[in-house]
Amino acid sequence: MIIEIISIGDELLIGQVVNTNAAHIAESLSIKGYDIHWITTVKDTAEDIKYALDIANSRADVVIATGGLGPTQDDRTKEVLVNYFGGKLVFDESHFAHIKEFFHRRNMPMLESNRQQAYIPDSAEKVPNHIGTASGMLFKKDRTWFFFLPGVPFEMMNMIRNEIIPRLQNELPPAARAQKTILTFGLGESFLAEKIADIEAELPKHIALAYLPSPQRVRLRLIATGNKREQLQEEIDLYTEKIKSRIPHLVFGEDDQTMEAVVGELLKEKKLTLACAESCTGGGIAHRITSVPGSSEYFQGSIVAYSNDSKINILQVSQESISNHGAVSETVVKQMAENVRKKFNADIGVATTGVAGPGGGTKEKPVGMVWIAVALPNKTVVEKKNFGSDRERNTIRSVYHAINMVRLGLLNR
Amino acid sequence: MIIEIISIGDELLIGQVVNTNAAHIAESLSIKGYDIHWITTVKDTAEDIKYALDIANSRADVVIATGGLGPTQDDRTKEVLVNYFGGKLVFDESHFAHIKEFFHRRNMPMLESNRQQAYIPDSAEKVPNHIGTASGMLFKKDRTWFFFLPGVPFEMMNMIRNEIIPRLQNELPPAARAQKTILTFGLGESFLAEKIADIEAELPKHIALAYLPSPQRVRLRLIATGNKREQLQEEIDLYTEKIKSRIPHLVFGEDDQTMEAVVGELLKEKKLTLACAESCTGGGIAHRITSVPGSSEYFQGSIVAYSNDSKINILQVSQESISNHGAVSETVVKQMAENVRKKFNADIGVATTGVAGPGGGTKEKPVGMVWIAVALPNKTVVEKKNFGSDRERNTIRSVYHAINMVRLGLLNR
Repeated sequence: MIIEIISIGDELLIGQVVNTNAAHIAESLSIKGYDIHWITTVKDTAEDIKYALDIANSRADVVIATGGLGPTQDDRTKEVLVNYFGGKLVFDESHFAHIKEFFHRRNMPMLESNRQQAYIPDSAEKVPNHIGTASGMLFKKDRTWFFFLPGVPFEMMNMIRNEIIPRLQNELPPAARAQKTILTFGLGESFLAEKIADIEAELPKHIALAYLPSPQRVRLRLIATGNKREQLQEEIDLYTEKIKSRIPHLVFGEDDQTMEAVVGELLKEKKLTLACAESCTGGGIAHRITSVPGSSEYFQGSIVAYSNDSKINILQVSQESISNHGAVSETVVKQMAENVRKKFNADIGVATTGVAGPGGGTKEKPVGMVWIAVALPNKTVVEKKNFGSDRERNTIRSVYHAINMVRLGLLNR
Repeated sequence: MIIEIISIGDELLIGQVVNTNAAHIAESLSIKGYDIHWITTVKDTAEDIKYALDIANSRADVVIATGGLGPTQDDRTKEVLVNYFGGKLVFDESHFAHIKEFFHRRNMPMLESNRQQAYIPDSAEKVPNHIGTASGMLFKKDRTWFFFLPGVPFEMMNMIRNEIIPRLQNELPPAARAQKTILTFGLGESFLAEKIADIEAELPKHIALAYLPSPQRVRLRLIATGNKREQLQEEIDLYTEKIKSRIPHLVFGEDDQTMEAVVGELLKEKKLTLACAESCTGGGIAHRITSVPGSSEYFQGSIVAYSNDSKINILQVSQESISNHGAVSETVVKQMAENVRKKFNADIGVATTGVAGPGGGTKEKPVGMVWIAVALPNKTVVEKKNFGSDRERNTIRSVYHAINMVRLGLLNR
């Protein structure tokens, strides 16, 4: 079965908005074994939408289109749909009741533009949107199903999960597929590839391996397609184990896990707590650690000491160390980690200090140079890294390198 | 001129990677007046790539394809290209010298997979990649130009800026276009639309207005297309002023500005400094503020006080206030903002405390309830908000609401 996503919206084509909607839809459907074959992004004009629908009609079994159903005037999609699929726009009393109820519950006034959302083509089946005011629609043309959903991410994803997927599973069950993603940290794509080249070479044809690098990790994704899901899963598990046992120190998790969640689980398991002292990462470590639900169980807090004064006054780093070695130095990062550990009465302290850039670099301490320390109950581990000249990239790499050092510390590695 | 972006990669179609590359390319080209008409995402298989190239050949003048040129074995694009455009793969000595030099400069070993990157179709012009090992390629077929670039974001964007755009400007100059994006905060899309409905109604046909909502702001984008750029720019400026003077309190900036950079500019202008005390935002405010280059000039630091103990011991919030009112309360957030202001010896203190969720909510203090305070030299402003049940969304909304309160405080509003 071939599925196509059509994302409608000028904002996507001028790059003002990144198409996360398409990625979220693709992810939710792939996990259930559905194969997204095409993603097409199209302007919000009648001509282009019609052209994209024609192509999709010729190659896809199921089309999921998003965008263009909101209340503001830049949305012209519904007229185009009536034109393409036939029928006419009809005022839907039951949907209007839903819209009124929606505003009533929130104690908010209803606008005229919201009333317009009650007009729905009579050639469509409605797809309920329980948390928003724009109804979804399903049209069938030749052998292709066309779903149209609003572009608001929360509403759209709610409909994908609760309406589209159950319906597809019921009426168009997927082919067998199994997959596993191995999450690694600490080595680049090409070097990982060399380490597992022989394993990759022996993969059977129906199993594909892909490398997905990003500043926070390199993911290795195995996908097997065939007939029997259980058998595919066994094969995938086998190769997963082979790869993991080849590079055990580099693997930190699988599938949807994040490094911060893995570290959270380790801290909970060992009943240990964590605190941070951040300079160049500017709160980034705390922000990632606290993105995990339940992190208050093990996370004590962070001191973002951006100025030298705050390093001295709040973190009690010695003035002398800063004068002698500079704020970006082994001595200072060590004191930051050890002092914050005591200050928050935590088991582990982690600290960063570096030159985030683009300004502030010198020959001895270039932009991108970062010192990271982890103070454990029995020792303090310090590393110096250089993550290059881009401020954002080098912040995120420092954040994840620091979290990984906590992970390795927790595993006594 | 019609431009199409083709993104090659299975990872995009299973939603494991969000297609930020396409957004970045689209943004860079639109700013220069080029019109991206289509973005197509395609699997890394010969059949699908060929099909996508056929469609692009029939409708586009310029195609920019990315992905599938990396060193690892999941890339099969180059063979497909020779098949489609003709010619054969030839070992390119000068490109091989570039690859060797690349590894030599970094003091890193070269891998066999990198040597393979020196094979280039003789039917292509090379497009130099100064910061990576995969060469870009340009093929011409019928009236269409096809650029192929590696998928690594840094290399790809470097080539877009330094190779593709200059070449297009030279040989295929764009139609006239002017645009302006007005950045607003504090009111939803539908309500903004009502406020400026009459202005929108009087827009001439060649000017389009789009609403681009996100948790951190709602952007209003005006685009005019026509013949004379200066005249279009004048028209856009006129409507921009009309809209801005209708909703002055809601507008915080224009175009590429961010709220955190705008607040940074205000702080620098007024020579004031900022410090934060964060509970539910977990370092998110500090992280945003420090994402701005040069923020060390005005940002003192943050205390992320995630536990009650740290609120009491490090921020000196009174134990009694926490016992009587709870950590999520007006009294506590006020003390946090005022105390952190003194602690960092800053001019302004900003604080948050709330129930980030998904756990921890009660009837009186549901998930999503957040108290935010800004302590200014002469007064402290406190607001209570409810941002709903999603942890990530409600953290980001709290962060930006807090930064906006600092902005309004700086403007005495």
